[in-house]
Amino acid sequence: MHDLDQTTITQAVLDQMATTTDPRLKEIMASAVKHLHAFARDINLTPAEWLFGIGFITQIGQACTDSRQETILLSDTLGLSALVNALHDKTRLDDATDTSLLGPFYRDASPEFANGDCIAAHPDSPEIGFYGQVHDLEGRGIAGARIEVWQTDEHGFYDMQKFGNEKSDVRGTFTADALGHFNFRTVRPLGYFIPMDGPVGSMIKAQNRHGCRPAHIHFLITAPGFRELVTSLYQGDDQYIDSDVVFGVSSSLVIQAKRNPASPFPSLETIHYDFGLARATESGEARIGADPSKLLKAPGLVGGA
Amino acid sequence: MHDLDQTTITQAVLDQMATTTDPRLKEIMASAVKHLHAFARDINLTPAEWLFGIGFITQIGQACTDSRQETILLSDTLGLSALVNALHDKTRLDDATDTSLLGPFYRDASPEFANGDCIAAHPDSPEIGFYGQVHDLEGRGIAGARIEVWQTDEHGFYDMQKFGNEKSDVRGTFTADALGHFNFRTVRPLGYFIPMDGPVGSMIKAQNRHGCRPAHIHFLITAPGFRELVTSLYQGDDQYIDSDVVFGVSSSLVIQAKRNPASPFPSLETIHYDFGLARATESGEARIGADPSKLLKAPGLVGGA
Repeated sequence: MHDLDQTTITQAVLDQMATTTDPRLKEIMASAVKHLHAFARDINLTPAEWLFGIGFITQIGQACTDSRQETILLSDTLGLSALVNALHDKTRLDDATDTSLLGPFYRDASPEFANGDCIAAHPDSPEIGFYGQVHDLEGRGIAGARIEVWQTDEHGFYDMQKFGNEKSDVRGTFTADALGHFNFRTVRPLGYFIPMDGPVGSMIKAQNRHGCRPAHIHFLITAPGFRELVTSLYQGDDQYIDSDVVFGVSSSLVIQAKRNPASPFPSLETIHYDFGLARATESGEARIGADPSKLLKAPGLVGGA
Repeated sequence: MHDLDQTTITQAVLDQMATTTDPRLKEIMASAVKHLHAFARDINLTPAEWLFGIGFITQIGQACTDSRQETILLSDTLGLSALVNALHDKTRLDDATDTSLLGPFYRDASPEFANGDCIAAHPDSPEIGFYGQVHDLEGRGIAGARIEVWQTDEHGFYDMQKFGNEKSDVRGTFTADALGHFNFRTVRPLGYFIPMDGPVGSMIKAQNRHGCRPAHIHFLITAPGFRELVTSLYQGDDQYIDSDVVFGVSSSLVIQAKRNPASPFPSLETIHYDFGLARATESGEARIGADPSKLLKAPGLVGGA
């Protein structure tokens, strides 16, 4: 037998895992072991520190419930979700709209609205308008595209945070017209803290991070034959626009409401944004937070940041 | 604002974490982020794969109960516990006995026995003898050292697996005599599977690993002024002696029972093993599975492999 020490143990683990049948699982686990071990060696991780880490990882899993997914939140706040999505998105066509995180407040089957409707039931701040077109990468409008939109109200709360699953508000589903156009009225969203009462919140506090996301409006846009688009548009004047705690902002997704006499809402401050959808391809469709059906079917998975 | 892509996001995360007050936490988290991101990039981790990983990590935490610590088991089966202990143990004096994992079956306050007693209440296989000395690194016996010993019975079960917390068996506490000597009778332990009904078990099966530990006897030895010793002695003729699923075996800890007319048990097959304890030092005392009080106080932590 060979004795295991801090230099030989990594190869011993890889040797024992070499019998793995699935070649991709074998590759992933080998890389995970190499990086985990290198991490421990690089910082000379002590047993007391690793016990703390084991307790932290345990708490992460135990904080997950039917309505909270702390593990995704950890992945989000470590920039890993954004990285994995970026690795995936590098294969997309450059003209498609950038993606952003789905987050935990997506809800299947949000109410249908007609173009021009207001998705906020009782606005107590001035309404803003939104209009845009869903088009393919040649710029042709996609008739009948479905646009699901959801956001916080003007006080920074999603309907689920106020009403549980009882009532829907400031969210809705629209159908693009024959030229791919759609429009609606809403209120200005407000940024918010990620959940700070769990182990991820403790980490964020220990790191003196503010824990905030800049104000944004979520979109999930689908059309037959096209790749599902999950994205968010971020308010350019938000104080956290450059320091999103989950690293979801791209400059192409930053918007600013303004008066526009040529818009469908000439009397309101209005956002204009067009969405480019890539054709569906065989591979690489799933993304973190992008396929709610997969997300909800995964064991214990519901949320995100 | 700078746009984040698969190459720039790592630095953006490190920048956002740079406000961390505690310098060691800052160092650990920076290394964790670098290695996590490098792992994702190295294998081009896909969102679907990472969602699976998020589900796995969630299940690990959720499998933990008051009597089961799946996160430690994961750490053990990835060789990380042994690595972290080895990093720590490289600072020990070379003459001290090698350490090994505490495992999940340690119990505080096991019954006191007198030298010569048998710790198995109802042996249904031939007894074996054990004798040894607890000494310092100059070879001087340590009078009054406390020796806690625990093991499986001849069928491969710990008392906790058979009786819960109701009854103690094949475990006990001995006190070394004025010269540091102690001895007892027991039965030959049998190796066993780690718990295979949780997410770690699923991983082990997918990797076609046998999931077994070679048969062993656990020791936790303490004496005032000395560093606590947690170790195990492994049966040399066990078929899994070279492929322990948790990487706990060192060649210096391999033993073989044999007849020895000069032993305290001339009529039995007997193991002779002496334990060298290092003096306590200021730093680095804790190790994974080595300090039960710390282990039990950590949130949700009870076990190990």
